[in-house]
Amino acid sequence: MSSSTVVPVAVLGASGYGGVELTRLLAGHPGVRLAAVASDRWIGDSVAARIGLGGDAWALRYQSPADAEAAAHGCAIAFLATPAEVSCEVAPRLVAAGVRVIDLSGGFRLPAASYPAVYRFTHPAPGLIDEAVYGLPELGDRAAIARARLVANPGCFATAASLALAPLVRAGVLADERLIVDAASGVTGAGRKASEEFSFAEIADDLRAYRVLSHQHTPEIAQTLGATAPLLTFTPHLLPLRRGILATCHARLAIGRTAADVTAAFAAAYDGARFIERCARPEDVTLHRVVGTNRCAIGVAVGAAREIVVCAALDNLVKGAAGQALQNCNLMLGLDEATGLGGLRPFHP
Amino acid sequence: MSSSTVVPVAVLGASGYGGVELTRLLAGHPGVRLAAVASDRWIGDSVAARIGLGGDAWALRYQSPADAEAAAHGCAIAFLATPAEVSCEVAPRLVAAGVRVIDLSGGFRLPAASYPAVYRFTHPAPGLIDEAVYGLPELGDRAAIARARLVANPGCFATAASLALAPLVRAGVLADERLIVDAASGVTGAGRKASEEFSFAEIADDLRAYRVLSHQHTPEIAQTLGATAPLLTFTPHLLPLRRGILATCHARLAIGRTAADVTAAFAAAYDGARFIERCARPEDVTLHRVVGTNRCAIGVAVGAAREIVVCAALDNLVKGAAGQALQNCNLMLGLDEATGLGGLRPFHP
Amino acid sequence: MSSSTVVPVAVLGASGYGGVELTRLLAGHPGVRLAAVASDRWIGDSVAARIGLGGDAWALRYQSPADAEAAAHGCAIAFLATPAEVSCEVAPRLVAAGVRVIDLSGGFRLPAASYPAVYRFTHPAPGLIDEAVYGLPELGDRAAIARARLVANPGCFATAASLALAPLVRAGVLADERLIVDAASGVTGAGRKASEEFSFAEIADDLRAYRVLSHQHTPEIAQTLGATAPLLTFTPHLLPLRRGILATCHARLAIGRTAADVTAAFAAAYDGARFIERCARPEDVTLHRVVGTNRCAIGVAVGAAREIVVCAALDNLVKGAAGQALQNCNLMLGLDEATGLGGLRPFHP
Amino acid sequence: MSSSTVVPVAVLGASGYGGVELTRLLAGHPGVRLAAVASDRWIGDSVAARIGLGGDAWALRYQSPADAEAAAHGCAIAFLATPAEVSCEVAPRLVAAGVRVIDLSGGFRLPAASYPAVYRFTHPAPGLIDEAVYGLPELGDRAAIARARLVANPGCFATAASLALAPLVRAGVLADERLIVDAASGVTGAGRKASEEFSFAEIADDLRAYRVLSHQHTPEIAQTLGATAPLLTFTPHLLPLRRGILATCHARLAIGRTAADVTAAFAAAYDGARFIERCARPEDVTLHRVVGTNRCAIGVAVGAAREIVVCAALDNLVKGAAGQALQNCNLMLGLDEATGLGGLRPFHP
Repeated sequence: MSSSTVVPVAVLGASGYGGVELTRLLAGHPGVRLAAVASDRWIGDSVAARIGLGGDAWALRYQSPADAEAAAHGCAIAFLATPAEVSCEVAPRLVAAGVRVIDLSGGFRLPAASYPAVYRFTHPAPGLIDEAVYGLPELGDRAAIARARLVANPGCFATAASLALAPLVRAGVLADERLIVDAASGVTGAGRKASEEFSFAEIADDLRAYRVLSHQHTPEIAQTLGATAPLLTFTPHLLPLRRGILATCHARLAIGRTAADVTAAFAAAYDGARFIERCARPEDVTLHRVVGTNRCAIGVAVGAAREIVVCAALDNLVKGAAGQALQNCNLMLGLDEATGLGGLRPFHP
Repeated sequence: MSSSTVVPVAVLGASGYGGVELTRLLAGHPGVRLAAVASDRWIGDSVAARIGLGGDAWALRYQSPADAEAAAHGCAIAFLATPAEVSCEVAPRLVAAGVRVIDLSGGFRLPAASYPAVYRFTHPAPGLIDEAVYGLPELGDRAAIARARLVANPGCFATAASLALAPLVRAGVLADERLIVDAASGVTGAGRKASEEFSFAEIADDLRAYRVLSHQHTPEIAQTLGATAPLLTFTPHLLPLRRGILATCHARLAIGRTAADVTAAFAAAYDGARFIERCARPEDVTLHRVVGTNRCAIGVAVGAAREIVVCAALDNLVKGAAGQALQNCNLMLGLDEATGLGGLRPFHP
Repeated sequence: MSSSTVVPVAVLGASGYGGVELTRLLAGHPGVRLAAVASDRWIGDSVAARIGLGGDAWALRYQSPADAEAAAHGCAIAFLATPAEVSCEVAPRLVAAGVRVIDLSGGFRLPAASYPAVYRFTHPAPGLIDEAVYGLPELGDRAAIARARLVANPGCFATAASLALAPLVRAGVLADERLIVDAASGVTGAGRKASEEFSFAEIADDLRAYRVLSHQHTPEIAQTLGATAPLLTFTPHLLPLRRGILATCHARLAIGRTAADVTAAFAAAYDGARFIERCARPEDVTLHRVVGTNRCAIGVAVGAAREIVVCAALDNLVKGAAGQALQNCNLMLGLDEATGLGGLRPFHP
Repeated sequence: MSSSTVVPVAVLGASGYGGVELTRLLAGHPGVRLAAVASDRWIGDSVAARIGLGGDAWALRYQSPADAEAAAHGCAIAFLATPAEVSCEVAPRLVAAGVRVIDLSGGFRLPAASYPAVYRFTHPAPGLIDEAVYGLPELGDRAAIARARLVANPGCFATAASLALAPLVRAGVLADERLIVDAASGVTGAGRKASEEFSFAEIADDLRAYRVLSHQHTPEIAQTLGATAPLLTFTPHLLPLRRGILATCHARLAIGRTAADVTAAFAAAYDGARFIERCARPEDVTLHRVVGTNRCAIGVAVGAAREIVVCAALDNLVKGAAGQALQNCNLMLGLDEATGLGGLRPFHP
């Protein structure tokens, strides 16, 4: 790709943690050019200064959401890192104007009928949900993503749990017993917070579950696993660290199935998947291995009673949000799927 | 109790983290007097200076294990905070000499036949296992603990998981589906470590599972839950913090059973239990609530598909080790169960 | 002291971190009885439930500030853990009503003329400042504290820095060169915060200086060191942990003075001081040694060029606030200075 | 530079934290090719697998130190991330063989006569010290680095403190009063550790000074500041986090000098310096701003009594070690100084 084909893109909601990460990644992407970046809190500020992009001459400044949306009309792709309700208002306008949209919120991931119960609002654009393509490339249809006008970028927990369990469900090797996912996330998964609950003194040295039996990613995971998947229980926990999700997932093999079937299922799903790091054992799946990268590390163990434990880890802001959005963007632009992402290496120690 | 009845006790293995905590707690216990404290690494050092007991005139010094064992012969109770293999050698000698023993290791918790596979040694004193009383007062027989010559103090994970699930198993309200326990512990659960694996740079900001499908507390929990309990999968994780265990436990109600049966089961098990803190919801069960105390916080939720999520939290060094040992000691001495433990309050922030 | 002489006390501002710690400590103090506890955010809530005091029958509930102030009129001592401006309004009313006051704010620590510049308000009760006794027992006049109507409880940084440097200044062994104090504090020193700046994601893994050349404890330290002390530069830093202050202090010996003079100065100041833990070397002064206790650990080194490095550590919520307030309370009530504080042992690991 | 001119380089001591970081950075550098990587603990292992360089076909494996040294003879530049004593043995052999050396240890930073006292060994190659060029480009002679056969890469603390103070010393604006540097570093500054002292349980939530008045970087800083600099006291502290150094430095203006002179001194020193990030205030100098980058952030305040506080922050493994080594390598190869470093952006949150 010659530099003359660099594609203009816009980011709305750019001052949330997901939006900041997305802006950082886009700034280092050789195939796109940041043309408009919206943040209602940083209007007029230099993007480079705000997010530490260094002393280069890069003069881009944050715009108001309205100005940036207007500017996005001249872009090929607009990324929405806005709350779900905002995305649901903005995405239809942009799509109607011919701008392709990658929405990082939950605004287009579920059937319209689910929104009142799960997201507490009535969806204003149910027709667009039908058209939206769920952007989890390793489990979806890359060709559909490539031609989508609107991509629903998956949730962070949903990405981890789906990548851990879908190969087994799809291979048909599981018994019809409950699927149980206990996952823990660093605090940036909750976004930028000005609350006592998320203050350092309250979070440090603690651990707790939240939204037990009611987290909005449960129906999202269930949908990705498919109608024939067994009953799913998903329980998120809040970790005293900044980035990273570890999902420990439990299933059971059908009678007659063996560990070899498990290995085959993961090989069938992920051979050639460049962002899946298959580990020899679940104990090898660590946050250190994935934080700062677009990878999902996965390891599995099978017990004597046919019980299966799959651990999956990813960076909630990268493979769980901004990195996956870039991966989808690459597919939409016909670029190598890893453009701007392959150089991300784990940051350790 | 008058001061003339203060009982002499000994601690062997006093320089491990469990042993240090035990020594701290015993030093503040009005009914006992530390008569001998063994540590092969701190021989001759002042106990008060080593563990920060302050400027008082308390002149006790660490002795060699051999000297302390000899001194323990004059004690009413000896606490063994030694490795399981050491406990298995020492406990028979002390019991034979008429000293009552509380063993904090796994040396007397399982049937003798389990030791080669689970603890990697052949048990030298199987007869004493038969006599040992498992010291989990809230789930056991306090009278049996009170008259025991040898108490097997439970493991930290086993205490949390058993307290979370036993009331449901015993009340007979569960379906015959797998029990799944995902638990996470601060690093002190692994003891004092001089290894790169447990260095700050390797642990900080990370999370991972370990001993998947093979942790030695799995048979201990299963034994406490009883022969009729369903298949159990226990998966421990290593948290980047010093103290605290959170166990998230999954079960399912039998058809026809309801949330009211769950509430009744916990009430039946724990009404009057002074170290069980029942929380309104699993989300209220936090490490902050229990670290530094002898409490186990428990909260439960029941879903529409009869799924049950129980969260239990405790301090692995207190209710998971030294505090529970003191609780057992109190029962053995005929003291109030909370002597020396009631004043422990959570340390927050 | 017989239980019939237990003294009623009140706490205003009880839901800040200092106020919570104070309430916890008072609840375990054998010589006082909490008669009124004020918090405008927790009105009506059980104190025991809010701060984890356990399952006892202690029925005390938080009152509104106005109600608690009224109730305080029946108390011997009122603790003010309120902001400085609030303390300056409340203390005069309580003192006028015959209630003795221990103020944990900066409301009565400096000359009235300093308040506009340092605390940004004009002091409403300058006469009471003149009467107030600065409550740093190890450096002050215990008899004056014992008879005070109003005690100004010192600031946390000021306590650490003053305890480190005052013995040297007072012994007259220092050259007339600048005193430099670089100190770092855990986040609870800043109080309970609902701001993005103090959110976990912003604080974790970071370190920075704040209020450089302008912190309000600078004049407080200078005042304690005395008019003849050299120029002082105090720079606080914010640590990514919950509790603890380490102050590294720099001075220089006068020509002809030696390390022996330094040792003698600290011995003269602190022999018999039960909450000062003198360490052999500055390297031995750690947060682990003091967090959870009312101690200040101090260690000093003297170099070949007569340079002096003194490290001092304390728990900002205990010796830096609530514990020191209790120490002052004990003096005021004629109790042993360590009542309710001697049992606090470092919490490690 | 065309790809045909890619230069082969070797890394010895590649499994220490500095060596791992260096290997990561070199793997992403467009102008060099890793030809040999030595680690006695990982002999035969894949470099890509060990340090997470991802699923590419990069087949390089760790070699024994001897094999790698032999292989280095075919390289243009060898990086030594070995202990000082090892570097002092290896560097002379490599230089004699015509290989240019960048030594990350302290082996060639001080006069030979200093080694017995400071590094506890007698230097075996004093002649090579005379030839070595100290590689702190912002304060040194880039042309000398460019033609050096041996570059002594600066220490991490020394880099931070020197960058903070040298502009003031060199501008001649300081009074002849002591320079005081209190600095704190994350644990990776101490290297890979398998000791109880550096275990998570001992480091977490703690802070302490170490090597007070005796750290080996003190003479290194003094040497960089020059013979006319005032007496220096440097006190390092150990922070409970993985990466980052903050140095808080104290000096005093000469009479008649003003804050404008300070500003001018920093401008004169650093205008055009691409890795120096000048901040408006010392309070803006944070670890978050620099960790993961090759930058040093610097901010200064001047008080009414002519006191100066300079804060400087850097990533001890990047600008404090591997990144600076790459910067020197770029100069030696005639490349743009920021090659392979400019894309490093702070990793936040």
